[in-house]
Amino acid sequence: MKRIDWSDTRNLTMLMDFYELTMANGYMESGLEDISASFDMSFRRIPDDGGFAIMAGLEQLIQNLKELKFEDEDIEFLRSKNLFSDKFLDYLWNFKFTCDVWAIPEGTPVFPNEPIVKVVGPIVEAQLLETLVLVHINHQSLIATKANRIVRAAQGRDVMEFGSRRAHGADSAINGARAAYIAGCVGTSCVLSSKMFGIPALGTMAHSWVQLFDTELDAFLAYARTFPGLCTLLVDTYDVLKSGIPNAIKAFEKEVVPRGFRPYAVRIDSGDIVQLSKKAREMLDEAGFEDCRIVASNSLDEYSIQEMLDKGACVDLFGVGERLITSASDSVFGGVYKLVAIRKNGEVIPKIKISETTGKINIPGVKELYRLYDKNTNMALADVITLKGEEIDVTKPYEAYDIYEKDKKAVLKNFATRKLLTPIFEKGNCVYDSPNIEDIKSYCKQQVDTLNDTVKSLKNPGHYPVYLSPALWQLKNELFEKKMV
Amino acid sequence: MKRIDWSDTRNLTMLMDFYELTMANGYMESGLEDISASFDMSFRRIPDDGGFAIMAGLEQLIQNLKELKFEDEDIEFLRSKNLFSDKFLDYLWNFKFTCDVWAIPEGTPVFPNEPIVKVVGPIVEAQLLETLVLVHINHQSLIATKANRIVRAAQGRDVMEFGSRRAHGADSAINGARAAYIAGCVGTSCVLSSKMFGIPALGTMAHSWVQLFDTELDAFLAYARTFPGLCTLLVDTYDVLKSGIPNAIKAFEKEVVPRGFRPYAVRIDSGDIVQLSKKAREMLDEAGFEDCRIVASNSLDEYSIQEMLDKGACVDLFGVGERLITSASDSVFGGVYKLVAIRKNGEVIPKIKISETTGKINIPGVKELYRLYDKNTNMALADVITLKGEEIDVTKPYEAYDIYEKDKKAVLKNFATRKLLTPIFEKGNCVYDSPNIEDIKSYCKQQVDTLNDTVKSLKNPGHYPVYLSPALWQLKNELFEKKMV
Repeated sequence: MKRIDWSDTRNLTMLMDFYELTMANGYMESGLEDISASFDMSFRRIPDDGGFAIMAGLEQLIQNLKELKFEDEDIEFLRSKNLFSDKFLDYLWNFKFTCDVWAIPEGTPVFPNEPIVKVVGPIVEAQLLETLVLVHINHQSLIATKANRIVRAAQGRDVMEFGSRRAHGADSAINGARAAYIAGCVGTSCVLSSKMFGIPALGTMAHSWVQLFDTELDAFLAYARTFPGLCTLLVDTYDVLKSGIPNAIKAFEKEVVPRGFRPYAVRIDSGDIVQLSKKAREMLDEAGFEDCRIVASNSLDEYSIQEMLDKGACVDLFGVGERLITSASDSVFGGVYKLVAIRKNGEVIPKIKISETTGKINIPGVKELYRLYDKNTNMALADVITLKGEEIDVTKPYEAYDIYEKDKKAVLKNFATRKLLTPIFEKGNCVYDSPNIEDIKSYCKQQVDTLNDTVKSLKNPGHYPVYLSPALWQLKNELFEKKMV
Repeated sequence: MKRIDWSDTRNLTMLMDFYELTMANGYMESGLEDISASFDMSFRRIPDDGGFAIMAGLEQLIQNLKELKFEDEDIEFLRSKNLFSDKFLDYLWNFKFTCDVWAIPEGTPVFPNEPIVKVVGPIVEAQLLETLVLVHINHQSLIATKANRIVRAAQGRDVMEFGSRRAHGADSAINGARAAYIAGCVGTSCVLSSKMFGIPALGTMAHSWVQLFDTELDAFLAYARTFPGLCTLLVDTYDVLKSGIPNAIKAFEKEVVPRGFRPYAVRIDSGDIVQLSKKAREMLDEAGFEDCRIVASNSLDEYSIQEMLDKGACVDLFGVGERLITSASDSVFGGVYKLVAIRKNGEVIPKIKISETTGKINIPGVKELYRLYDKNTNMALADVITLKGEEIDVTKPYEAYDIYEKDKKAVLKNFATRKLLTPIFEKGNCVYDSPNIEDIKSYCKQQVDTLNDTVKSLKNPGHYPVYLSPALWQLKNELFEKKMV
């Protein structure tokens, strides 16, 4: 089957920040290129001040890492800068990916300061991955986190993603729909995303359909005739209660019911959704269409949905667009990619960045991340970041240090552990099969269900505890106090 | 030259909302497919409540429209939905683009309710373009508008875009950097965008460079040796004033000056930039490096830059990332694509959508858009939306109606006119060559310069007048009063 290469200049290997190249060239010129480095991706703050974020974007990152390759024209482009040594350009031309990569599986709830992706390999190589790692994980984790908030606000009602038109370019639409589905949306309006990932595609009519016909009723009748089994009518082109709903009822009666179907839904896209939906519900019920759904849209997000439901809106499905696909109330997932250790002459040297801004201090060392679940309830108790190689003995109480308050300790008891960081690449070879999207979606739901209700609260959520192992705690404090300059 | 097809399943023809397909199928089943329809893209609100927006994204839209094609696998995917008629699927398989498209050139300041893209063609075809038109123009216009605000806040200082890592996927990074450059940024950190569009690539080192070495001074010396001619040192890994600046000065003196170069810059990425930059300036000046630039970064946007400069920050170049590339303070450009007229049996029938939300009412009719410039000063006076075919006589005073206040009239005098809508496709053939990016960038600057200062104000900007021609005003009122249902 022939496929269009819609933009044949795209090769995402070069989706990097320029400084990664100047640094990599500099490592080489300084004879440091073979130093083994360990980088962590972590994030500093949960968007919308939520209680947790949701990991996503790994599948697309893996795809790009498998295809890393500098083309002749890339090398020529870089050569034209007159900045890079021939040795470095040759290295790029012969680039072979040899790093080890670990990551937390997609759909997992994650918390600030945890290593969510870990890259270990020659510094010159690991440095070059920074932007690719960040752009995929930051983007999809942002949207998954937002979508899950919106789904929670809908309290069991369906939420559909339909923001493609307001997305930040094609990837934002396509992969954003994917992240939203993982996190609980029931489908997307985006046809391409539906095709690529097998997400249900949803959608029926725009105002243009209604406008095209001489009257709204004509428009509804024609649509009902064409799609009697999936008849959703958009009722706000002129006046929801005076014309939209009455005309929809007429169309259902004339073209849907006689064909042996039930009406699917009406959609309200403007005005006071609370009042309009209540009245629309009454009118539909009175006409015998108690089973006809009411769909609401119009710049919705978790805040407006929560408010509508608090006021008794009669809505069965929310169509959520721009505020989901751009995470409008908080559009940045602030993941960073930081050097945490190097190996030189066989010795591992942990690295710290102090920074003038306290929140920007990183946790040094090559790490492991454990989630502790209550043995009786299977609820998530806490996460513990340890140094790599440390094991947590589940048969004994475990003492760990608070990540934020320097000398605060906790004793954890009666738990099972799970390692969250999973091997993705070993010496550059992919050793991980991304689960199919339905499995990621159900895993996500199941993992979110292990969080207690206060952590899942949309406003002022409870704090989920993240601890450091005693050894890691000690290392961090030692390095911080040395503040080596 | 061989190029990687980084994701061979991408064909953006299918980047559409599902309802476009159900509607198009419905038009065909209702025998309406040959009705000629006119759609306008317009937007409702300027992001950040600014005084104007900047049009961008046209080049990428054109590229996609040139390559419209449904592949076999697309047809099979749609057939599997059991919703679409064979006739419609055959139509898609043989799809041939035949629409006329007009658009406002990239870099032009634009205002709410103006037609910025206009598509005329068979309804079944024009309907299918909705998402592609919107996603490109919404995205890049958003970023161009934001970038221009940030550039204005910097008051002549350079602004560099480096948000790739926080972008919403690859297109958001790549095309976002393009839009930012058009609107006045001096370059981007994004290597791929630099290569694709010829935008200057900028960037030097991350904290990882500094951390890799045993001491900060070693790191600076090594970097200065490698890049003496373009030596920018990141001075906040440990302590800006106690170690960063003193070590930078040492490195400049030891490795840059003796090689016949001058130091390029120091970069501060955390802490109180106002105080740190003032002190850093003093220290650099004292060392004889008055020409060494100071670069500031750290979640900047137009608001923080304005505040810093008001407080006397000594910054020469701002590196702006996440808040530019996601337009964080207002991440939605609300462009819509609305049916404004149809042609049936040779007669043009204008179309209106009333809506329950006043702001969602569209302006009916096939239109033209004029910008009026003062004949003496060449400053932009006002825009006038007319019906297509109406000419504005520049030899006489012109009376027009305010777009917002129903009966408010204005008389415009002593002006020259320019039609803003430019032919892009004629009967499906592209008739427009996108200017090169440098020309778009200078055109943008020149056009922004024709706006008066109050319109360019970042806070509470003055209102730029947009009028309706008397004929269009009358049409709109007539249709609105008919409220045909």
